[in-house]
Amino acid sequence: MKERGVLTVISGFSGAGKGTLVRKLIDEYDNYSLSISMTTRAPREGEQNGVHYFFIDKPTFEENIRSGKMLEYAEYQGNYYGTPKEYVEQQLSAGNDVILEIEYLGAFQVKKMLPEALLLFVTPPSADELLRRLRGRHTETEEQIRGRMKRAIEEADIVDKYEFILLNDDLDTCVRETHEIIQNAKYSVSRNAAFIDEIKRELKDLKEE
Amino acid sequence: MKERGVLTVISGFSGAGKGTLVRKLIDEYDNYSLSISMTTRAPREGEQNGVHYFFIDKPTFEENIRSGKMLEYAEYQGNYYGTPKEYVEQQLSAGNDVILEIEYLGAFQVKKMLPEALLLFVTPPSADELLRRLRGRHTETEEQIRGRMKRAIEEADIVDKYEFILLNDDLDTCVRETHEIIQNAKYSVSRNAAFIDEIKRELKDLKEE
Repeated sequence: MKERGVLTVISGFSGAGKGTLVRKLIDEYDNYSLSISMTTRAPREGEQNGVHYFFIDKPTFEENIRSGKMLEYAEYQGNYYGTPKEYVEQQLSAGNDVILEIEYLGAFQVKKMLPEALLLFVTPPSADELLRRLRGRHTETEEQIRGRMKRAIEEADIVDKYEFILLNDDLDTCVRETHEIIQNAKYSVSRNAAFIDEIKRELKDLKEE
Repeated sequence: MKERGVLTVISGFSGAGKGTLVRKLIDEYDNYSLSISMTTRAPREGEQNGVHYFFIDKPTFEENIRSGKMLEYAEYQGNYYGTPKEYVEQQLSAGNDVILEIEYLGAFQVKKMLPEALLLFVTPPSADELLRRLRGRHTETEEQIRGRMKRAIEEADIVDKYEFILLNDDLDTCVRETHEIIQNAKYSVSRNAAFIDEIKRELKDLKEE
């Protein structure tokens, strides 16, 4: 019942702390693999193929899209970024739980490709707190912050397509709860059709004995 | 976000150990209340009203059914048994998580009345193990055991209407996982419509400032 890993997609408001959450989750528990993205942009100094990204050329990426090899992808500033299906499948088959940190358009593409995917959305306790965190970074102009808040309104409208909300108030609590939600997803009825079918078959066989 | 308690309905194959699971859950954690059933049967020696059952007469029970005061009920050997809505609502409002151990017909009645209810189904790791446990009790005839197995086939057909399967292999593990699933249900998107609406409203207010 526990063999295959769980694919978890984590999205959230920018400023909700999802990057930190994901890093801590992977550091603290050894069952998680972070999905490696594929991109057509050139490697930056120190970036290694297969570690930071899978670097490939544009025609190959486009061929991957056409042949259904991408779980999700998007174009950004003239380059493609996406999640190759094969790597994720390998990890899941090996029993590793895979974490994908992507935004909602990508999340919905993944869910369509792999309906078993668990969609989690990270939020701070309130909108005020979100604004406070964005301002606290001191790295962005007021205009950029307004852009992020506008984007957050858009995201709030699609939260109900996710399965769980992760309230990131205290980080350690949030990491533990996220881990529990992912581990317990293994017991959700929708992810156990095979086990249920097996029990049904066994019960019927026993009855006939 | 965590104020209201979670109503959990626990069903399962007979022999799956759900009674022991529920008792251990209530013993080990202090946030759970066991729902008290209402019945029209006479109290047995030592049974107290409001502790073991709420004992009421038949016309009052029938009036409760008609006026929608029962979350679920069934008739058994000429008496009514059921769950009064008011007690459950009081507990949930007080922030207590309520556990209801009932069979599937009752579970579906509850879900219809309170769609927020979390439906959990307890199963042993295999049908063989179920049979072994039933035989190991040494309290039932082979005919009774066959009856229970026949009933299990019926139940296996409706498991997919539950949200989670609790695999009761090791009891302590199962108790812990059940607790986690119930606690994390508080973060499910479907149980947080009010919180999501609030964040949306706050974001829009901030934008207008």
